[in-house]
Amino acid sequence: MHFTPNSNALKGLAKAEGLDAVIAMSPENFTYASGAYILTVKAIRPRQAYAVLPAAGAPFAVVCSIEESLTRDESWIDDVRVYTEFVHNPIDALVAEMKKAGLTKGRMGIDLDYLPATSFARLTAALPGVEFVNTTETIAAIRAIKSTDEVALMERTTKQTHQAVLDAMAASKLGDTEYDMAKKIAMNILDYGADGTLFLCFASGERTPHPHAYAQPDIRPKAGDLIRFDVGGSYGAFSSDFARTYSAGSPSAMQKQVYSGLIACETAVIEAVRPGVTAEDLFYLCKEEFGKQGLKFHMPHIGHSFGIELHESPMLRPGDKTPLKPGMVLNIEPGCKDDAGHLYHSEDLVVVTETGYRLLTLGIAPRELPVIGQKIAV
Amino acid sequence: MHFTPNSNALKGLAKAEGLDAVIAMSPENFTYASGAYILTVKAIRPRQAYAVLPAAGAPFAVVCSIEESLTRDESWIDDVRVYTEFVHNPIDALVAEMKKAGLTKGRMGIDLDYLPATSFARLTAALPGVEFVNTTETIAAIRAIKSTDEVALMERTTKQTHQAVLDAMAASKLGDTEYDMAKKIAMNILDYGADGTLFLCFASGERTPHPHAYAQPDIRPKAGDLIRFDVGGSYGAFSSDFARTYSAGSPSAMQKQVYSGLIACETAVIEAVRPGVTAEDLFYLCKEEFGKQGLKFHMPHIGHSFGIELHESPMLRPGDKTPLKPGMVLNIEPGCKDDAGHLYHSEDLVVVTETGYRLLTLGIAPRELPVIGQKIAV
Repeated sequence: MHFTPNSNALKGLAKAEGLDAVIAMSPENFTYASGAYILTVKAIRPRQAYAVLPAAGAPFAVVCSIEESLTRDESWIDDVRVYTEFVHNPIDALVAEMKKAGLTKGRMGIDLDYLPATSFARLTAALPGVEFVNTTETIAAIRAIKSTDEVALMERTTKQTHQAVLDAMAASKLGDTEYDMAKKIAMNILDYGADGTLFLCFASGERTPHPHAYAQPDIRPKAGDLIRFDVGGSYGAFSSDFARTYSAGSPSAMQKQVYSGLIACETAVIEAVRPGVTAEDLFYLCKEEFGKQGLKFHMPHIGHSFGIELHESPMLRPGDKTPLKPGMVLNIEPGCKDDAGHLYHSEDLVVVTETGYRLLTLGIAPRELPVIGQKIAV
Repeated sequence: MHFTPNSNALKGLAKAEGLDAVIAMSPENFTYASGAYILTVKAIRPRQAYAVLPAAGAPFAVVCSIEESLTRDESWIDDVRVYTEFVHNPIDALVAEMKKAGLTKGRMGIDLDYLPATSFARLTAALPGVEFVNTTETIAAIRAIKSTDEVALMERTTKQTHQAVLDAMAASKLGDTEYDMAKKIAMNILDYGADGTLFLCFASGERTPHPHAYAQPDIRPKAGDLIRFDVGGSYGAFSSDFARTYSAGSPSAMQKQVYSGLIACETAVIEAVRPGVTAEDLFYLCKEEFGKQGLKFHMPHIGHSFGIELHESPMLRPGDKTPLKPGMVLNIEPGCKDDAGHLYHSEDLVVVTETGYRLLTLGIAPRELPVIGQKIAV
């Protein structure tokens, strides 16, 4: 699934930052900067790839021979240089190509939040005239504003995943195992258009407090048990990220109340999304709404930007004073625990518009705790 | 899906290496050293987790609060210490816990092939009395020898994936799109027991030279086209990795010959697997067999160890002189191009035994190029 990176912003980036070049090489920054979705930059980390964006001169990419043809096919960067894995260290190949391009002195940006310590030591030893600065977040800030194409893609994939969940849970029943239900979700995610699954966290009852537990083949949620899941499909370089809470049957009054309170808080946060509001404003608003609903607040963050990386900047956390801007895409995902310590969670995707927000899921979860087997109108 | 790491080797590791402590923190080394499968150590990289294995004293883990309960549930390390994301930098939390444990001077190992440059700078500034050395490969060497449990798990998941492929390709027919076929494989992988998909590379005809291309919804392989795919399911911390080549129909004599030659080479390499043979021996044997079959050899490696990491050590590449040992699990995966530049590829998993090898797939691919729609006997 192709997408069009903001190549104008990328071409001008080094100059705008007062740098001689910017080198994008974390999996997300390389993918975004090159526009090429090379599976192995994430899956086989030693096979590093670099998109070099000089202040003067044309950008070029350095990739291993195995990924050359796909990079040429997908990237807007025409100049693709190649190293042979195990014959050349990727850093040595990068340095050789930088020397050819005259990039041997000055200040340059690279993803120091990703570049491994051994690679950084090799790079600085080979280029003693270069001062490297960390531009991980500089490129992430460009990624934070999604193009119309990216928003359309994310809306489609998120709605597919939401529908996959609705249909799977409507088709589930008391007596099914956690694994049965999670498998229905996963199969629907694939069937409705994903090219793979990214993660499927699924737990019921006493295991709900593990945010990233996996479905168990021997656990059959009983009447009165909560079911909580957080799932994502993969769609080329993009993915989906979606969470809901259900009851296995006969929810208690306490469970209904906690759940309704959580959805009220989530709704209030979503309705507060608009340009100028900061990321931490939404965090503190959520905390305040929890207080109003009598819910215990325990989260380090209540949501995150979303794109080709699962958690992007800005994060909806204390201390992140980034003002929201049109084109930012955010997952709002508060969670809370009841007196038994069981976890409730709901997550929806929104895009910041010129005047407020637009929901990218099919709809916020119903205010009343849904029970498996129910059809939910959206 | 739980597994039992070699905790005895881990407990004795620092002492055996002459170090005061070893800190496992790459996604694979943390997962292996802790025995806890925490999705986010890979999926959300800033949320670092550490398994600290001192030469003297008990091991402890440092994880973020979100992952505390799952770590306590799954890890053999009882002492789990916790930091709050966005309140404490993970490195600061690690340093604070190391100070409490008296680990403030001496030589210590950490995964410098993974630890980002910014984290390493923060760590060394906070612990000026410690000399850090790279133990990424030291822990990987322990991981290289699989336990009986791990081999049984990998055999089961690989056979499931192989069967998923056989059934999907038998159910495919001329006129189906690449996407139709890849989706059948993915759905079968899930249906037969995976908890997700890891990757699904699929291409036909002129796109086969891209090793990691994705299936296209608008390409319908024609009679005479090759179809090549490399797919993996995820099974908790483990996965599968399996490749095959098919014809869409009416293969040419040249295609049949190239394909048969490739399978002959793969078979010869597999049959040469036994303790004492080195990783590069298998690479050079493969190259020699290619010559005998009149095939062009272009690969940087012809296979890799496999475990909780996709490419583990040893790699079947020139320069890797690691002698094979019983318990190593290897993917043998030669590939070659025909005169049209189209790519053929076949991949099987074997475990090194005391006397040779045991195949973990359902069987090596048939010597004759299979055609979609055919049932293949295994």
